[in-house]
Amino acid sequence: MSALFQRHRVLQRSTHRLLSPASSPAPSLRDLNRSGIKILVPKSPMVQVQEQDQDQSRPLPDCVPASSPALEVSPERVTSVCMALMLNICICKSPGAALMEGVANGGGVTAAKRRLDERFDKRLRFSVRQTESAYRYRHLVVRKQDSFTHIILSTRNSQNNALNPEVMRELQGVMAMAACDDSKLLLLSSVGPVFCSGLDFLWFIPKLTEDRRRESTRMAETLRTFVNSLVQFPKPLVAAVNGPAVGLGAAILALCDVVWANEKAWIQTPYAQYGHTPDGCSSYTLPLIMGPAAAGELLLGGRRLTALEACSKGLVSQVLWPHTFNQEVQQRIRELLSADAQVLKESKSLIRSWSRSGLEQTNERECEALKRIWASTEWTEAILEYLQKPQEF
Amino acid sequence: MSALFQRHRVLQRSTHRLLSPASSPAPSLRDLNRSGIKILVPKSPMVQVQEQDQDQSRPLPDCVPASSPALEVSPERVTSVCMALMLNICICKSPGAALMEGVANGGGVTAAKRRLDERFDKRLRFSVRQTESAYRYRHLVVRKQDSFTHIILSTRNSQNNALNPEVMRELQGVMAMAACDDSKLLLLSSVGPVFCSGLDFLWFIPKLTEDRRRESTRMAETLRTFVNSLVQFPKPLVAAVNGPAVGLGAAILALCDVVWANEKAWIQTPYAQYGHTPDGCSSYTLPLIMGPAAAGELLLGGRRLTALEACSKGLVSQVLWPHTFNQEVQQRIRELLSADAQVLKESKSLIRSWSRSGLEQTNERECEALKRIWASTEWTEAILEYLQKPQEF
Amino acid sequence: MSALFQRHRVLQRSTHRLLSPASSPAPSLRDLNRSGIKILVPKSPMVQVQEQDQDQSRPLPDCVPASSPALEVSPERVTSVCMALMLNICICKSPGAALMEGVANGGGVTAAKRRLDERFDKRLRFSVRQTESAYRYRHLVVRKQDSFTHIILSTRNSQNNALNPEVMRELQGVMAMAACDDSKLLLLSSVGPVFCSGLDFLWFIPKLTEDRRRESTRMAETLRTFVNSLVQFPKPLVAAVNGPAVGLGAAILALCDVVWANEKAWIQTPYAQYGHTPDGCSSYTLPLIMGPAAAGELLLGGRRLTALEACSKGLVSQVLWPHTFNQEVQQRIRELLSADAQVLKESKSLIRSWSRSGLEQTNERECEALKRIWASTEWTEAILEYLQKPQEF
Repeated sequence: MSALFQRHRVLQRSTHRLLSPASSPAPSLRDLNRSGIKILVPKSPMVQVQEQDQDQSRPLPDCVPASSPALEVSPERVTSVCMALMLNICICKSPGAALMEGVANGGGVTAAKRRLDERFDKRLRFSVRQTESAYRYRHLVVRKQDSFTHIILSTRNSQNNALNPEVMRELQGVMAMAACDDSKLLLLSSVGPVFCSGLDFLWFIPKLTEDRRRESTRMAETLRTFVNSLVQFPKPLVAAVNGPAVGLGAAILALCDVVWANEKAWIQTPYAQYGHTPDGCSSYTLPLIMGPAAAGELLLGGRRLTALEACSKGLVSQVLWPHTFNQEVQQRIRELLSADAQVLKESKSLIRSWSRSGLEQTNERECEALKRIWASTEWTEAILEYLQKPQEF
Repeated sequence: MSALFQRHRVLQRSTHRLLSPASSPAPSLRDLNRSGIKILVPKSPMVQVQEQDQDQSRPLPDCVPASSPALEVSPERVTSVCMALMLNICICKSPGAALMEGVANGGGVTAAKRRLDERFDKRLRFSVRQTESAYRYRHLVVRKQDSFTHIILSTRNSQNNALNPEVMRELQGVMAMAACDDSKLLLLSSVGPVFCSGLDFLWFIPKLTEDRRRESTRMAETLRTFVNSLVQFPKPLVAAVNGPAVGLGAAILALCDVVWANEKAWIQTPYAQYGHTPDGCSSYTLPLIMGPAAAGELLLGGRRLTALEACSKGLVSQVLWPHTFNQEVQQRIRELLSADAQVLKESKSLIRSWSRSGLEQTNERECEALKRIWASTEWTEAILEYLQKPQEF
Repeated sequence: MSALFQRHRVLQRSTHRLLSPASSPAPSLRDLNRSGIKILVPKSPMVQVQEQDQDQSRPLPDCVPASSPALEVSPERVTSVCMALMLNICICKSPGAALMEGVANGGGVTAAKRRLDERFDKRLRFSVRQTESAYRYRHLVVRKQDSFTHIILSTRNSQNNALNPEVMRELQGVMAMAACDDSKLLLLSSVGPVFCSGLDFLWFIPKLTEDRRRESTRMAETLRTFVNSLVQFPKPLVAAVNGPAVGLGAAILALCDVVWANEKAWIQTPYAQYGHTPDGCSSYTLPLIMGPAAAGELLLGGRRLTALEACSKGLVSQVLWPHTFNQEVQQRIRELLSADAQVLKESKSLIRSWSRSGLEQTNERECEALKRIWASTEWTEAILEYLQKPQEF
């Protein structure tokens, strides 16, 4: 009984967190200081941009408790969102395990979050060696080294490197810088066992309870801008896919110029399964890359592709062995970097020139469709049902 | 000698049948009643449409005997058409074997046809279980079940599920209905060992002896409309390819959104071999799906692809084991059906939006080219030569 | 010491040859007479066209010695060009070995060249059987046989069948004829262990020392016209790839309709590695055929594909065994030739109709980019550095 009660409290707290994402925008730096990474820019330049952005468009919402009468979605539904979240944590052993551990120890979500951060940073210590040019953003670690920019996705307020507007805006900011500086290319990888689990629904669903239509429009606009910034990025985009890439996380691979995948990685676009139409231009890229029959099974049936299958279908350039993945990526990056910056840029421009307008139009259409879908209450039902199913990462 | 004489009589009769396809439009229902299938629509709604259609455009032709002086193709040629037909029957053991059996027993074509029908229906008893929503059309069995429409091709007046205008119009009619009703998707499969052998040349060649130019134009128009109805079908098109798919039968797979193939199936587009240019948008879809070099070998060289090869090239989504093919298809269909109808429709719309105009233009061009080719006497020579070669199905 | 001196003399001579390519335009026919090939057109009809062309556009340059003060590139650089050439010869055992042999024997480049020619012709005796319709051009052997045209690349003034304007103009001339005569298709193969090593930089670099901007524009224009003539060729283009295809040599494969590769062949487009942007429409064709991730690795990273990999990615139709390669090609060609000429032509037209404008636009853009790149002195540095690395063929 007491365990059940404790669980209820945790649920309430986590719901609270879910519904008030902007209440703690400043990243805790304590754990970072403990880690080996030397930080040059202690506060993300993105956070400011983002705060401004939020200020302009709407006032910071007050903390809305889970039982608020203003909620469009019933409390039972919200509880089920949290149940979905809990389930998610249970299944996704690491790094969610740290969070779960915290929960089990009665430490609450905040303590669990802190331990999660520590874990992240410990992992970063391996992949980001001590170098003076590692910048810690809120959701990214950015390394500028050997004439390329390396973005390491390590989201703070989303599980499994899911993409919410905060994360997307940070990524866009770094990409905008990398487009202008002396970087020859942009390498995208991520911390943890999951490369990217797509859109952050746990962030997004509670938002919809405020003003469904407005939030859907905002989210669609954010997504549109983010995907366009990938489509229009002028230098080679290289992805090092260490683990599962799901939904938007898989779709962005098709917008990259080189994709190296860990053999343990897998690709899935279960859009229809979560009541969605395709995003990230996948309705254009996947059929073009692998043919409509293969793409149909992915986009409509949510079939999961192993890294090797994805490679044979053209979505992945090469599959690398897990235990030497990082070294192999490093070596291949060095080979790419032997080319001239201008040549790489012009080659990329030529390679993408014929598909750019198609991609932009598709992005427009996809976001338009998603806006409509998100604005419907049926979608919330569908996505909640999906999230309640065990997600094996 | 007497056997030879009998053969000649059979030939004459079959020629007669070939040259007067509209003489027996009403399907015999006796055999169906004997089979286990409960018929809701005893007469195909398509037959009426089609009769009307024929009435409007031209008077029903009188029976034209093989030796008619009005024929453009010489009697020897017509005999060779029939020889081709005979050869075809000899090689294609089943279901043609039933026809051959009837011939051997001196029962004539009509009796043989009846036995063929029985065979078909016996086979249907396995694949179409007794359900109140199975409709028997003349060339199709249509099942409405679990929110999807299942079309089972089982042509009556063509071998190996070849597509003649009658069959195409029936398919179009069912597709038009499935586009509007509550079906989430359309599953296309077929009865017998062959999925679809493409255009029904044995139906078409005798037609050309009447008015070559007019008939070529009519056929091209019918084909154009049929292929466009596939291109424009608004819901996911799923094909379960139980056996060989040849020519147009292979081309339509590239217009489907999901294609599951029996491991025994194979794909071939021997267009050049029968003096043809590509049809069914294959000149657009195949190079796009598998690259021009691979597509060139198929479209120009008529190379045969095994199901596994077709899968590795992106024409087939998955290859399934023969002995559990139907169960596997059923299971995968159920998975697809778990998605929302509107989401499936919108996803399909997005997936096809960028290629639709290209497909329609290609269809236009292909039918234009075929019209010219069919109108030439050289083509009849070419196709007769092709048909005389043993067709291994 | 004396060996070193001798080397220097050889270098000077070869530089001399490099810088005065038009000084010996008439092909030596002595060796050909000795070989088994019966020549119908003793002088290539192309040579005349080409001479005219050269006369119109510019006066024949006087022999410019390597130490000429008019040279933009320093003598040390030119020496390094030659060093690159020498290195190339050392590594590329055959047919370069003959040249090297001549050098070792102190016979000078001319003698070595003669022996090289003999080798070529000896090899031709195997692949071109004595037939009255074999035409010896300067850089090609053209066979008209069984209603198809067979071009066998065997360049005289470039190593490894590299393409310089002379070779490209000859190819264009033969293609223009094959487009109009009764050939059903055009088969492209080559003599020697290398199919085609792409653009002939050893020919091109010394040209740049004269008037960099003008020569870059001329070369870009020549390339544009050559690639367009491939794109617009109205009949099926078949390539029999006996050995490595590099750069432009690989890019033209994607413009062919059927590509059969020897299992020993490999494909590489190390454009970025030699400071280049893609040519031969490869920035359009490769991403379309194999997806951007796979194409990116090829075009940006210069990854080498084995014939089997190229086949699985759709760039090659089929991989054939080395020791029966020619027979297999012959047999498959016969199969293709069984089709009607008009049908092959119209099918090709349909297959390419939807991509033609995209290809032409890409060709335009690519040549525009190359013109800019070639006009920069940085490029000469880059390409010289690349050429100095051992090229393993």
